[in-house]
Amino acid sequence: MWKRYSTVVTSILVADRQDSFVTRKISETNLEYGGVPGDLHFGLTKLAGTRELMYERGSEIFNRRQVSIVSVEECAIIAEKLGVHQVLPEWLGANIVLEGFEGLTGLTPGSRIIFPSGAGILCEGENLPCLGPGKVLQENYPNERKLSTRFIKSSLGLRGIVGIVEQPGKISAGDKAEIVAYSHSD
Amino acid sequence: MWKRYSTVVTSILVADRQDSFVTRKISETNLEYGGVPGDLHFGLTKLAGTRELMYERGSEIFNRRQVSIVSVEECAIIAEKLGVHQVLPEWLGANIVLEGFEGLTGLTPGSRIIFPSGAGILCEGENLPCLGPGKVLQENYPNERKLSTRFIKSSLGLRGIVGIVEQPGKISAGDKAEIVAYSHSD
Repeated sequence: MWKRYSTVVTSILVADRQDSFVTRKISETNLEYGGVPGDLHFGLTKLAGTRELMYERGSEIFNRRQVSIVSVEECAIIAEKLGVHQVLPEWLGANIVLEGFEGLTGLTPGSRIIFPSGAGILCEGENLPCLGPGKVLQENYPNERKLSTRFIKSSLGLRGIVGIVEQPGKISAGDKAEIVAYSHSD
Repeated sequence: MWKRYSTVVTSILVADRQDSFVTRKISETNLEYGGVPGDLHFGLTKLAGTRELMYERGSEIFNRRQVSIVSVEECAIIAEKLGVHQVLPEWLGANIVLEGFEGLTGLTPGSRIIFPSGAGILCEGENLPCLGPGKVLQENYPNERKLSTRFIKSSLGLRGIVGIVEQPGKISAGDKAEIVAYSHSD
């Protein structure tokens, strides 16, 4: 039911600007309950928005979208589908970039990503595409047409996952991490 | 991608004895972040055990098993498979019993159960069977053979789900709740 895979953490990133979800690379961080300290999405709770229409808009809910994780391979596929040179993890607001694990976005919720320090992230499933990153893409490729809407369609199933910090601890660019994948079919 | 279903809360239960995971019925509770106040499994964190072998045993981790939810229909199927009169939700340590929603245990992680007060639970997926409830079953049916181990096999896929309190609030026996089910295939 559980399978283990190796992957490499190519980058750690944080969205620590006042006015943007765009992230920037940092060499390491100490994951806390709630996410990446200083990040826009950090917190054990958040306000319900368009992704949580089952709750009253603006009401406080538990934050299951603490950390955003993407893969080098899937970002490259999105870029290819859009016909652009590259799709940077920064533009997607990603906090962690992994390389060497195929099909990250399809990782079953309940799976874990475990880091050498012991820190671990609980997978909450696919990060469904929204308009924001597409707009950033459009700004970076002003000569391409309709990137902001094309991004949503092109990145479905490829835009990475969100997760909850299950065990706090240090994570660093270059870490070799383990994916403990849960599978119903085995 | 999202579908809504109606269900009825037939019971609310709490495990508030010192020495047992067995629950008892209460008329209502106020869900808090962390679960059902006073319950054995209440807490935003827990200690890693046999269900979380990816972490050092006994180390503190986030608690994704805050609330246990079972269905009347699935408990009846387990009882039939075991050849016993009934399998009480109390014996499974359940906190919430639902009726009228088929296939609760297969509910996709990321789905929600929303109560009339606005309170909501985030589904974290199947509660994989373990030995404890089977032992309680055996105590209640001393003339049946090997119930504690047969329970594990018979209840796989039927033993309900675990979840996280996503929005605190009051829940009561008799509530009509809504299941907001996430589906990849639609």
